[in-house]
Amino acid sequence: MIKTDSGFDSIDFEVTDMSGDWLPDWLSRRASGMPNQIAVKGKTESLTFADLYRQAEEIAKRLASLGIQAGDKVAWLMRNSVQTAVWIHALSRLGVVQVPLNIRLTASEIVWQLTDVEAKLLVFDDIHTEKAAEIGELLPSLTQLNRNSIGELPFGNAVLRDRIRLSDTYCIIYTSGTTGRPKGAMLTYGNHWWNAIGSSLNLGLEKTDRWLACVPFFHVSGLSILMRSVIYGMPVIVHESFDPATVNRSIEEDGVTIISVVSHMLFRMLEEQGDRPYPDTLRCVLLGGGPAPLPLLEDCERRNIPVVQTYGMTETGSQIVTLSPEDAIRKLGSAGKPLLPAELRIELDGQILPAGEVGEIAVRGPSVTIGYYNRPETTKEALRDGWLHTGDLGYLDEEGYLYVLDRRKDLIISGGENVYPAEVESVLLAHDAIKEAGVTGIPDEKWGQVPVAAVKLTENQTVTEAELIEFCRKQLASYKVPKRIQFVDQLPRNASDKLLRRLLADLFREEAGAR
Amino acid sequence: MIKTDSGFDSIDFEVTDMSGDWLPDWLSRRASGMPNQIAVKGKTESLTFADLYRQAEEIAKRLASLGIQAGDKVAWLMRNSVQTAVWIHALSRLGVVQVPLNIRLTASEIVWQLTDVEAKLLVFDDIHTEKAAEIGELLPSLTQLNRNSIGELPFGNAVLRDRIRLSDTYCIIYTSGTTGRPKGAMLTYGNHWWNAIGSSLNLGLEKTDRWLACVPFFHVSGLSILMRSVIYGMPVIVHESFDPATVNRSIEEDGVTIISVVSHMLFRMLEEQGDRPYPDTLRCVLLGGGPAPLPLLEDCERRNIPVVQTYGMTETGSQIVTLSPEDAIRKLGSAGKPLLPAELRIELDGQILPAGEVGEIAVRGPSVTIGYYNRPETTKEALRDGWLHTGDLGYLDEEGYLYVLDRRKDLIISGGENVYPAEVESVLLAHDAIKEAGVTGIPDEKWGQVPVAAVKLTENQTVTEAELIEFCRKQLASYKVPKRIQFVDQLPRNASDKLLRRLLADLFREEAGAR
Repeated sequence: MIKTDSGFDSIDFEVTDMSGDWLPDWLSRRASGMPNQIAVKGKTESLTFADLYRQAEEIAKRLASLGIQAGDKVAWLMRNSVQTAVWIHALSRLGVVQVPLNIRLTASEIVWQLTDVEAKLLVFDDIHTEKAAEIGELLPSLTQLNRNSIGELPFGNAVLRDRIRLSDTYCIIYTSGTTGRPKGAMLTYGNHWWNAIGSSLNLGLEKTDRWLACVPFFHVSGLSILMRSVIYGMPVIVHESFDPATVNRSIEEDGVTIISVVSHMLFRMLEEQGDRPYPDTLRCVLLGGGPAPLPLLEDCERRNIPVVQTYGMTETGSQIVTLSPEDAIRKLGSAGKPLLPAELRIELDGQILPAGEVGEIAVRGPSVTIGYYNRPETTKEALRDGWLHTGDLGYLDEEGYLYVLDRRKDLIISGGENVYPAEVESVLLAHDAIKEAGVTGIPDEKWGQVPVAAVKLTENQTVTEAELIEFCRKQLASYKVPKRIQFVDQLPRNASDKLLRRLLADLFREEAGAR
Repeated sequence: MIKTDSGFDSIDFEVTDMSGDWLPDWLSRRASGMPNQIAVKGKTESLTFADLYRQAEEIAKRLASLGIQAGDKVAWLMRNSVQTAVWIHALSRLGVVQVPLNIRLTASEIVWQLTDVEAKLLVFDDIHTEKAAEIGELLPSLTQLNRNSIGELPFGNAVLRDRIRLSDTYCIIYTSGTTGRPKGAMLTYGNHWWNAIGSSLNLGLEKTDRWLACVPFFHVSGLSILMRSVIYGMPVIVHESFDPATVNRSIEEDGVTIISVVSHMLFRMLEEQGDRPYPDTLRCVLLGGGPAPLPLLEDCERRNIPVVQTYGMTETGSQIVTLSPEDAIRKLGSAGKPLLPAELRIELDGQILPAGEVGEIAVRGPSVTIGYYNRPETTKEALRDGWLHTGDLGYLDEEGYLYVLDRRKDLIISGGENVYPAEVESVLLAHDAIKEAGVTGIPDEKWGQVPVAAVKLTENQTVTEAELIEFCRKQLASYKVPKRIQFVDQLPRNASDKLLRRLLADLFREEAGAR
């Protein structure tokens, strides 16, 4: 039996190769094919693909000395930076399953995820030393590593991957749901590959492309940019966080051709940009996070900014349905059509609905998650016959364009972050003074939406709005904390006593009108 | 169990979808997503993707009335044209396995292939009426259809594919080998898909791309352009045949950005173009058919023509190794590096050789053929552990660039067509006067190479060169017929009596020198 260059037994390949399940490692290939091309560019640091490859390899080898092996879960708590990109590629090279953590979560929210995912290691950057310490207090058994001390570790016995198996899990990203705790969506190498290919077949792939990442790498929107970088051989311009002026300057100075944003970011960019035009090199503004408001789209049309609206979620490896700039105004409010490798349909009670009828949005294709980690029942419920049931409501028009009516499970999208009412309600209900709680989103100029709550007090108990907000702040990431809390005698419920969250918003509209 | 929109049972999908084996039908998707985009443009006729879809669908439905079903082999004998493109997509839509026939072959060569592939139908265009009649005489049992009479057929009971299974066979293309008859290389939908994706990740994918096809659709080089058209949503500019002046004019007038050629075509184009510059819109000249001569590359560099040299074959779905324009002169004579999804190595006696050492070129990846039709033994010999053993000799330099020293099995490439010495020799040997025959290629200014032969006469027999050439012409496509035939007392052989074909060329060099 011939041993291949990657050291695997070759028998395995005969079958799997034909289905296209194995590919050469993307980063290795780019490092060999275009060593001097910029891979990641930050504020002060730039790495070529050869640099990125070498640095990632060194980290992978040193990490191996901790006994970390392919298949282990390694969680990370890091802000966007060039070094964060290196670490993400290092973990992939070692074959571990990475678990990106939302840095805005509280220590207890993170501990819950670390426990659920059975993490073997938590890596954090300097900025998160304090939060890591809090996590350490709550979960002392978990090994932690400040990434700055990686150089102190010796080289371990690492078997680094030269090939990628598309069906292997690349990462687990936690997303919340209607009820209960967040669940870990597993995304394979194949999910990322097909997402990148679907995107390139839609947006094109130009030699001059440079993608600006000011969305976090711990979200699928940011992570997928890093995947495209090594698959396309394309530079990523990394921003530590979103600042409108810095982003606008970067678009000009770094020759950015594509940028991923959500509405509130684009709104603030345009505001900061004022009358100055954007350079012609900016060929695509990929706009996620729900349908964009008309004035924003009109402003972009006037300024000749090519906005590609998208619909997607963690479970689809980012964008899966997109609306081209040509259709932006004609199909206002639409999310567009599925990417080439994806399929889309509207279902109700197991039936496929015709155009114009409202039902649950279902998507299928090779970029769709293989399921939720350790949640066979939830997976079975969400993925039926290959179709992911998103929980979002919508319809297709006669031309097959998707209109999303309501995000799943009363989802609130605030500044690009998902807030699930059920999660916030469960925190409120844990307060002694609260008998019932309802949370919903109301429009907000800056964040798109913000969460607000209505509560019914337990008899003979009192609490102030400020006290409740402070109570939430201790247990929830700040973007999840209700901005306003109203005290009511009765929450709106239907005949079956089901909470009608959408009616809650009226309470706040009336309030605003009364002012 | 939910029935899906394509009518298949859904159970099957749950497993296969995750491996990315199923995709939406490419043409259907492009027709729905960009109905008004030009798909195929010929001299007088242009079709949008919506036109192409409708016309292909109609043909598929009418063909079904002949009892043609998914999986049947349908051979076609057609020159490049817009309608040929429609037919190719129609056959795919019906799910049949198509067998493109080289129109330069003789009727008896074609009959051999039709019989070997167990064809159920032969479709031909008006130009090939006469050859089809000859074929009909030799193979009266095979149903034939002049494509112009398709409109006379009623609609049949066709189940048209809405989805593509990547592991299904798309076509069977015959290629010759060292010994014996040609064999049918099976290419799947997946082979074509991955080839198109590998090409786009290498060459990029621009909104303005238009690919000129003056190489025949019955070769993988031309067919793969049609595949890219529906996968990328890109117009193809179809030329019926290669004419330097027409191609040069088309590059200018049709906004061609990419063209596939072999050296002798490019040479004639440059000659015809004279001092006029090519437009900047021409961003890639994809040059196949063996290493390009230095003067040609230098001329292209002077004219600022971006030449991407390629190495590939029918079995790899066209290009699999390419050399970028930046490396054209620095790595003169190299075929370059493998496309992203492909792997490359040099083998000798089952061992992988290090850089600098000469051995057999082996390639692996999802664009590599699944094997030869009805040839399990040949397939097993060629495909080992997923690696295709090309029979070509070469080496890798220290940077991993491939140098092809000798095409497989003494292959002669004449004007982009493969000529296998063994095939020509077997025809010569069938002549009563010939006892031994050896065929090789010699350099030719126009065609790159042309075949020549050396023969040893049977005792007491005589024949003239002209008579032998005429004898070959009756049985071989004209590009295979030896241009010169020498009579010798002894053919060059090694100690094991093996014919040393390369030494044959010396006979003709000496002859040329003596003139």
